[in-house]
Amino acid sequence: MVVETICIGTEILLGNRHHTNANYLAQEYAKLGLSTYAQSVVGDNEERIMEALRLALSRSDLVVLNGGLGPTQDDITKETVAKLLGREMHSDEVTKKHIEEYFRTRGQVMAECNLRQTMIPEEARILDNELGTAPGILLNLSEEESARFRKTTGEIQTIILLPGPPEELQEMWQKRVVPYLQKRSGEFIYSATVKVCGRTESEIAEILDDVIRQNGEVTVAPYARTGEVHLRVTAKAADEKTAKKLVKPVVKEIKTRLGDSVYTTDEDVTLEKAVVDLLLANELTVTTVESCTGGLIAGRLINVQGVSEVYKSGFVTYSNKAKRKLVGVKRKTLDKYGAVSEQTVREMVGGATLFNRADVAVAVSGIAGPDGGTEEKPVGLVYIAVSVCGVVTVKEYHFIGNRAMIRERAVAAALDQMRRCILEYYSKLTFGKEE
Amino acid sequence: MVVETICIGTEILLGNRHHTNANYLAQEYAKLGLSTYAQSVVGDNEERIMEALRLALSRSDLVVLNGGLGPTQDDITKETVAKLLGREMHSDEVTKKHIEEYFRTRGQVMAECNLRQTMIPEEARILDNELGTAPGILLNLSEEESARFRKTTGEIQTIILLPGPPEELQEMWQKRVVPYLQKRSGEFIYSATVKVCGRTESEIAEILDDVIRQNGEVTVAPYARTGEVHLRVTAKAADEKTAKKLVKPVVKEIKTRLGDSVYTTDEDVTLEKAVVDLLLANELTVTTVESCTGGLIAGRLINVQGVSEVYKSGFVTYSNKAKRKLVGVKRKTLDKYGAVSEQTVREMVGGATLFNRADVAVAVSGIAGPDGGTEEKPVGLVYIAVSVCGVVTVKEYHFIGNRAMIRERAVAAALDQMRRCILEYYSKLTFGKEE
Repeated sequence: MVVETICIGTEILLGNRHHTNANYLAQEYAKLGLSTYAQSVVGDNEERIMEALRLALSRSDLVVLNGGLGPTQDDITKETVAKLLGREMHSDEVTKKHIEEYFRTRGQVMAECNLRQTMIPEEARILDNELGTAPGILLNLSEEESARFRKTTGEIQTIILLPGPPEELQEMWQKRVVPYLQKRSGEFIYSATVKVCGRTESEIAEILDDVIRQNGEVTVAPYARTGEVHLRVTAKAADEKTAKKLVKPVVKEIKTRLGDSVYTTDEDVTLEKAVVDLLLANELTVTTVESCTGGLIAGRLINVQGVSEVYKSGFVTYSNKAKRKLVGVKRKTLDKYGAVSEQTVREMVGGATLFNRADVAVAVSGIAGPDGGTEEKPVGLVYIAVSVCGVVTVKEYHFIGNRAMIRERAVAAALDQMRRCILEYYSKLTFGKEE
Repeated sequence: MVVETICIGTEILLGNRHHTNANYLAQEYAKLGLSTYAQSVVGDNEERIMEALRLALSRSDLVVLNGGLGPTQDDITKETVAKLLGREMHSDEVTKKHIEEYFRTRGQVMAECNLRQTMIPEEARILDNELGTAPGILLNLSEEESARFRKTTGEIQTIILLPGPPEELQEMWQKRVVPYLQKRSGEFIYSATVKVCGRTESEIAEILDDVIRQNGEVTVAPYARTGEVHLRVTAKAADEKTAKKLVKPVVKEIKTRLGDSVYTTDEDVTLEKAVVDLLLANELTVTTVESCTGGLIAGRLINVQGVSEVYKSGFVTYSNKAKRKLVGVKRKTLDKYGAVSEQTVREMVGGATLFNRADVAVAVSGIAGPDGGTEEKPVGLVYIAVSVCGVVTVKEYHFIGNRAMIRERAVAAALDQMRRCILEYYSKLTFGKEE
């Protein structure tokens, strides 16, 4: 099945908003084994939406449009698709109730303009939006409708309209569209993700060169993330069991080669969840003392549901005084080595552990820039200390990028270092017991 | 002049590589006052490159292709463009020397495959590549060539081919393409952004209905962000001065209608920067005490360069014990009203102000879910307290979405509340003085 994405929205054309949806959908197509050969972006303009849709329908089985389903005058996606197909629009009562309910639960009254969002083309399947007001829409084309666009005959053509806000689109895609596509497709695709941190994409590409190159039934594709690389292993077969059987040995081989750098093979486990799971499994509590990352490590840990079992409190110690007052870094240490130093993060982590009575602590101090760098301590220099039951490990990092990127990379490195230090601590304990 | 981008490369289609070039070019077009209405991405495939190019030439004056100029067999952009136009390719001696020189200065010998990069279509203008081997190419279409594609007659059509690596593309764009376009273009575009927080997109659409609907020389387009809406006001004129003159009264009208909800009209100012700027201007220090947002407010404030003047330290108080121990919330308050209550955030903000000796403090406590909600205190309920020089304001919010969205929305609301409370505090001070 060939699928094509059309993103609608002047803000993408103006470079104001990134192609989040196009990238997300591209990766989802790969997971489902759908082929995709083209993508387009058009503004909220009837003629150009029609042109893009005509071209897409001439060559693709499934066309996924996103954006332009909002309540304002310039949101015209639904109306334009209906017009191209020659279908009438009608107000949908269920959708209207859903939108009214959406506002009621927020203590608001539905605005007049939201009535536009209740209008649906004829013979449409409505895709519920749990996170917003715009419903998604799925339209199967009749043979006559398809004949106007496509060059050759083929399977039933489908147009899917999704809302523009990424979280709404992603929720709807997972809950409404994926089940529909799985049912429709005869072939079974199974894919597993191996999530890796602490290694660059090039390092991984070299270690796995032959595995990635192999042209068999199983494909391995790397996707770079901030501080992480995800490897997607995919196989296509007549049934689920056969596809899984093909994927399994390849995942095993990757895990063997990359060792500790693999932090999970579970799609739903993020790096912060892997850390929280390790803490929970070992009944450890954790605290954070952050300078340049200023709360972002705590922020990521606390995004994990159930974190309250392990995370109680943390500090943001941005100034030198805060480092002294809140976690007891010595004035002498700051004077002699500076705030960005191995010695300072070592004292930060020590003080935090004592004061918060936590088993594990992480401390970060670095130069995120753009100012503040020197020849000796350049922008991007970050020290991270991790303490696990009193065993402290300090590492020096050099990150590149702008202020936001350096901070994000430091957060990922800190989470990875926590993970590795906990694993190492327990591996040594076990070793000791065996002796 | 209407311009359109075509990105060529299978890796973009697969979601492996972000749309760096498309976003860069979009922003460059806006700067130069070029209109752009569509964008497409196709793989390295002759038929689809031709389809995209035909559609683009039917409606645009300038088509910028990027990618597919490399030395390998799957790089076919140049050949495909030449084929579509019916132009011959020839080997270019100057380009050949440039590529040989490129390798010589790197102590390497030109590979056989790089000879493909010396091939140029007839009557092309070559754009030197200072950072790589692939030359850029600029082709002006003859009237006969244009007549095959475009619907109406117009100015000379131009196709520009740029290399895919972003640094090469950007260098070539700035040094070779911009001077060419500036010479050629007569029109000027000016746009301003009005950033709004604390109001939904629908509310804004209703308040500005007639402003957004007007079909004059000035367009107003709203873009939703998490907890914010950005309004882009754009005008086109013969010169910069006239365009600015058209935009100015519309921006003023929007500011009048939306009042305090407009936090900036500066493209580079984020919501957190607006808060930090207000603090700096009034010589105030700030601290944070976060429960459900767990460090994310601090994280955003600290992303502002120069924040060290105002932000010294903050707390993450996720557990009840941490709320008691670190910021002195009374056990009785927690027992009687619960951690998520007006009373608790009021005590949190009080304790933080005292302990960190800050002028301004923000405290957040809420239920981010998915667990922990009750009928009385549902998921999404968040209390935010802001203290400005001892004047405390507490607000109750109801956010929707998943755990991450509720937290993000709470962060935006907290920043907005800080901004409004500081403004209000000083507006009252001035009033007092006048009496």
